[in-house]
Amino acid sequence: MNKQALFEQIKQKGSYLCVGLDTDIKKIPQHLLSEEDPIFAFNKQIIDATIEHAVAYKPNIAFYEAHGLKGWESLQKTIEYLPDDVFTIADAKRGDIGNTSKMYAQAFFEELQFDSITVAPYMGEDSVKPFLEFNEKWVILLALTSNAGGQDFQNLKLAAGGELYEEVLRKSQQWGSAEELMYVVGATKATALQNIRQIIPDHFLLVPGVGAQGGSLAEVSEYGMNKQCGLLVNSSRGIIYADDTADFAKVAGQKAAALRTEMTDYLTKFL
Amino acid sequence: MNKQALFEQIKQKGSYLCVGLDTDIKKIPQHLLSEEDPIFAFNKQIIDATIEHAVAYKPNIAFYEAHGLKGWESLQKTIEYLPDDVFTIADAKRGDIGNTSKMYAQAFFEELQFDSITVAPYMGEDSVKPFLEFNEKWVILLALTSNAGGQDFQNLKLAAGGELYEEVLRKSQQWGSAEELMYVVGATKATALQNIRQIIPDHFLLVPGVGAQGGSLAEVSEYGMNKQCGLLVNSSRGIIYADDTADFAKVAGQKAAALRTEMTDYLTKFL
Repeated sequence: MNKQALFEQIKQKGSYLCVGLDTDIKKIPQHLLSEEDPIFAFNKQIIDATIEHAVAYKPNIAFYEAHGLKGWESLQKTIEYLPDDVFTIADAKRGDIGNTSKMYAQAFFEELQFDSITVAPYMGEDSVKPFLEFNEKWVILLALTSNAGGQDFQNLKLAAGGELYEEVLRKSQQWGSAEELMYVVGATKATALQNIRQIIPDHFLLVPGVGAQGGSLAEVSEYGMNKQCGLLVNSSRGIIYADDTADFAKVAGQKAAALRTEMTDYLTKFL
Repeated sequence: MNKQALFEQIKQKGSYLCVGLDTDIKKIPQHLLSEEDPIFAFNKQIIDATIEHAVAYKPNIAFYEAHGLKGWESLQKTIEYLPDDVFTIADAKRGDIGNTSKMYAQAFFEELQFDSITVAPYMGEDSVKPFLEFNEKWVILLALTSNAGGQDFQNLKLAAGGELYEEVLRKSQQWGSAEELMYVVGATKATALQNIRQIIPDHFLLVPGVGAQGGSLAEVSEYGMNKQCGLLVNSSRGIIYADDTADFAKVAGQKAAALRTEMTDYLTKFL
C-alpha cells in the first residue's frame, strides 16, 4: 500500500486508528481457551468488530513468538485474515547487519506479507536500508518511544547540539523518503511533536501510547497531523482488553468506534 | 550456564570460539537440498564437526524466521541438538517495552531454552531488564557493532563527554551484573577495546567480525581478555561456508580447529 492509498483509506473511514493485536493468551477471555487456536479466535473476533473503525492493525510479534510454532501459526492466520485494504504493521523492532536485515525483510514482507515493519536504529544505515529495498513496503523506525527507558538514550544531548532522537530523525531521512519511511513517536511525548514536525513535516508517524498508556489523542492530532493526515494512532489494551467476557469483541468495537468518532472530528479540524 | 561454568568450558577446550549458525539455504551445499530439513541437516553436521573446538553456538534468528514455520522448526531442532554444556546465543537483537520484552524472553529462554539473547539498547532500561529476570540466563547488549552503520549513532559525541556507545556501557551496568550481562563489541573496533575494558573490566564480550569481516583475533585477544577470559569470539562464514561440497563439514571442522589452536595459545599468553 502506498502513501496515497493509505490516505484514501483514512479519509474513507474518517479514522487513523491502528488496533494493536498484542494478544496475550493469559489475558483473553477464558471461554476462548477451548478453541483450537485461542489467539487466532480472539484476533478474528476483534478484527470483525473493529474493521469499520480502523485503517491499520499491528500485531506485536513477541506475543506470537512466545508460543513458538503455534504462535507463528496464529500470526500467519491473523495476517491472512486481515483484508488487503488495511495497513498491516509487524511490530517486530528488528535490525541487524545488511544481509541479516534482508532475511528479516523476507520473513515479514514475503513469508507473511506485512505492509510494514518497525525497525530499531542503533546499528545505523546498513541495518535499515535492506528493508527499504522492497516495493510498496514500509520501514517504521523507532525515534522517540513512550516508555520510561526511552529517556535513557533518546534524550541524550549531543555535543553537536540537539538530542539523539533528533539525530535519528535527521540522519535517516537520507536513507529513504516519506513514501517508504515512517517513525514511531510515543504519544506521551506529545509536546515534542511540534519539534518533530519541524524536522519531518511529511512523514507518517506511528503513535502508540494513546489510551492505557495515557497519551492524549487531542494533542497528538493537533500537533502531529499534516496534509495527508500523517498519523497512525495505536491502541492495544484500551480496545482488545476493554472487556473479558463473551462480549469482549462487541465492547472492543465500541471502543474503536468512539476513537473513530473523535478522529473524524480531528480530521475535519486539523487536516 | 553461569559465568564460572562458562570459564570452565573455555579452559577445558582451550577455546573461546563461538560458531555462528547463520544458515542460508541459498548458500549451503546443493546436495543437502534433497534432505527433509536442509537447514537442520547442515547445522547438525557443522555442530558434529566443530563441537570439540567451540564453547558457544549462535544461530542468527533472522535466517530461520525468513522461512516462517519451517524455519522455526529448524531452529528448534538445532537448539535441541546442541548439548547442554555449550553456551547458546539467540542472536535476535530484540527489545521492546517491558511486558513485550518479557514475551521475547519467554520465547527464547523458555520455549527454545537458549542460554542468552542479544538485545538492542535503544529503548533503555525497562526494555532490557525483563530479560534479566531469568535465572542463569544472559543478556548480550549491543554496544559497538562492526558494521559501517555502527558509526551513524554509536560514535556520536555526547555533550556530557564520551560517545553514545560508552554511555550505553556505563548506564547498563546499573541494570545487571557481569554475571548476567555481556556486550556485543565488533572485532573491527579492536583498538577501542582498551577503552572499553577500562569501562567494563569484568564483563564478557561477544565479538563478531573475526574472519570474513576482517577483525584480528590476535588484537582482540590481547586487548580484550580478562582474568576469566571474558571473550566469546564468533566466526560464521569463515567456518560454515569455508567449503560448499560434500566435505563442507570436514573443512568447517578444520577452520574451527585452527582458530582453537590460536586461542589456546592466547589463553596461555593473556589469561
